[in-house]
Amino acid sequence: MGTAAGEPPFHPAVLFIRRPGAPFANAMHQRFRVLDSLASGEPLAAFLAAAAAMPDPPRAAVIMGGGVVRADAAFLDAVPSIRCLVSTAAGVDHIDLAECARRGVGVANSGTVYSADVADHAVGMLVDVLRRGLWPVQEDYAFGSTLRGKRVGIIGLGNIGSLLAKRLEAFGCIIHYNSRRPKDSVPHKYFPDVHDLASESDVLVVACALNKETRHIVGKDVLEALGTDGIVINIGRGASIDEVELVRALKEGRIAGAGLDVFENEPAVPSDLLSMDNVVLTPHSAVFTLESRSDLCEHLICILEAFFSGEPLLTPVLP
Amino acid sequence: MGTAAGEPPFHPAVLFIRRPGAPFANAMHQRFRVLDSLASGEPLAAFLAAAAAMPDPPRAAVIMGGGVVRADAAFLDAVPSIRCLVSTAAGVDHIDLAECARRGVGVANSGTVYSADVADHAVGMLVDVLRRGLWPVQEDYAFGSTLRGKRVGIIGLGNIGSLLAKRLEAFGCIIHYNSRRPKDSVPHKYFPDVHDLASESDVLVVACALNKETRHIVGKDVLEALGTDGIVINIGRGASIDEVELVRALKEGRIAGAGLDVFENEPAVPSDLLSMDNVVLTPHSAVFTLESRSDLCEHLICILEAFFSGEPLLTPVLP
Repeated sequence: MGTAAGEPPFHPAVLFIRRPGAPFANAMHQRFRVLDSLASGEPLAAFLAAAAAMPDPPRAAVIMGGGVVRADAAFLDAVPSIRCLVSTAAGVDHIDLAECARRGVGVANSGTVYSADVADHAVGMLVDVLRRGLWPVQEDYAFGSTLRGKRVGIIGLGNIGSLLAKRLEAFGCIIHYNSRRPKDSVPHKYFPDVHDLASESDVLVVACALNKETRHIVGKDVLEALGTDGIVINIGRGASIDEVELVRALKEGRIAGAGLDVFENEPAVPSDLLSMDNVVLTPHSAVFTLESRSDLCEHLICILEAFFSGEPLLTPVLP
Repeated sequence: MGTAAGEPPFHPAVLFIRRPGAPFANAMHQRFRVLDSLASGEPLAAFLAAAAAMPDPPRAAVIMGGGVVRADAAFLDAVPSIRCLVSTAAGVDHIDLAECARRGVGVANSGTVYSADVADHAVGMLVDVLRRGLWPVQEDYAFGSTLRGKRVGIIGLGNIGSLLAKRLEAFGCIIHYNSRRPKDSVPHKYFPDVHDLASESDVLVVACALNKETRHIVGKDVLEALGTDGIVINIGRGASIDEVELVRALKEGRIAGAGLDVFENEPAVPSDLLSMDNVVLTPHSAVFTLESRSDLCEHLICILEAFFSGEPLLTPVLP
């Protein structure tokens, strides 16, 4: 849409709840009047009150995951003009979806922006855990294990899980999966029960969203079913695994190893994990690629522009 | 073949030149009379002389790679009964192939035993290098890079290179390759010149055998062609890269990173590499999986039994 000469272009207000140090704000400034929680320097409550009191209060908010804020009834009450919440994360466990649905607030997530990167990261961690011996030299010829022939049980065969399956098939892995329903177009064996999936798997990958059903979906029993040669990879959400039980199983040798990008109480990581040499840890960084960052920017702008022009959200998330 | 009751089965003598700490000897003992360089406790020259002086001197030798011995004219002179040399390594750079050919000594290598593991390891290292930020947490959100769309130039499209290409295609990489000749059945773009390959690649993977033609095939010019965003992976042989130039290029930021499983003067590793955070190092361990160890045992026995029964070697290596 054109603007008269000399008239500044109209930039709708967007609330941006940002994690310290996190990028992305600059690209947003070119399209929107960004009300940046971090740049404001104010406590969150005061920041939200000020935004709500503006003559043109924000109708959309971008919310970073990772414990900055929980977008619940109190949050929505604080800025009642908000009709659209966009999560920069694939997960929306920091957004009260039921409350949003009740109020007619649209919610979108990062869609498939990160999926390939997270799948790639999962493979990288799995190779590392299977090989154990990164530097220094193991004088006694510590042997790792191979990928080919490994039965990998994927919990959650959404976009990430599917891309992971595709990659692991190229390594000669056998893919099993659990999800709420079997997928029609998928050749892999479906397990309606996670315990059974673990029993039939050498590697268990958590790639599901975190919700009531999946919280602690990998607990003591499932770890026991996975067994002493089993490996757990988590590139989903920390709380999908009972972390206390996972650490205990690793310490006691009841499972063989783990690759973890996410933790139950981030940024806290159980100190026991840091000293284990059969564990590979990354700091929730599976999504951190330059390409994803750029793709996310485009994705956010696309969603927000669609919202402001009255179009339905491109990646609606339903409770 | 049957043996008379009470008569011990015939076990042909096999010379086993073994690296300290290396396994495999036990499985061999069940089939062969193993003359073990390590178990003998003697200096190599005395050990070889004693073997040659036996009434039934060994006609076959298993030689571990990694600088234990060079199987050259002097070695073959020391035990002239040897008609078959089997390398436990994929590489045969520790065997003088021309001298063996001249004497009619058959040579076999590990065949494809390790290929999948080495290909897997290369992918794991590439993911790690691209992501850079393994633990600890990068407070300033260090961003890695993604695999999809990356142009990977593979030097040497033998068994390992082909398996690597298959894996990387599942990640959305674009495969280019260099080898002595273009491969007929391969859809990837062939570059007769490594410099050109590097110019057109984001990642350069050394997966070729080490020989006169490939020694320092990746030198200063090739690294310069790869460029400041380029990554080098070496799962072939250390000396295929000019290591001094590689370290220099990494230090000066003329390439972006490296993943190295092999080094020019193993077990020595340039100390500069150890402190670089854009470098992932493993101690020539790509092949060290339990599955490969088991497969190698079977492979060695298969080759030796074929040799002793007068069959042609299964994996002849020609100079």
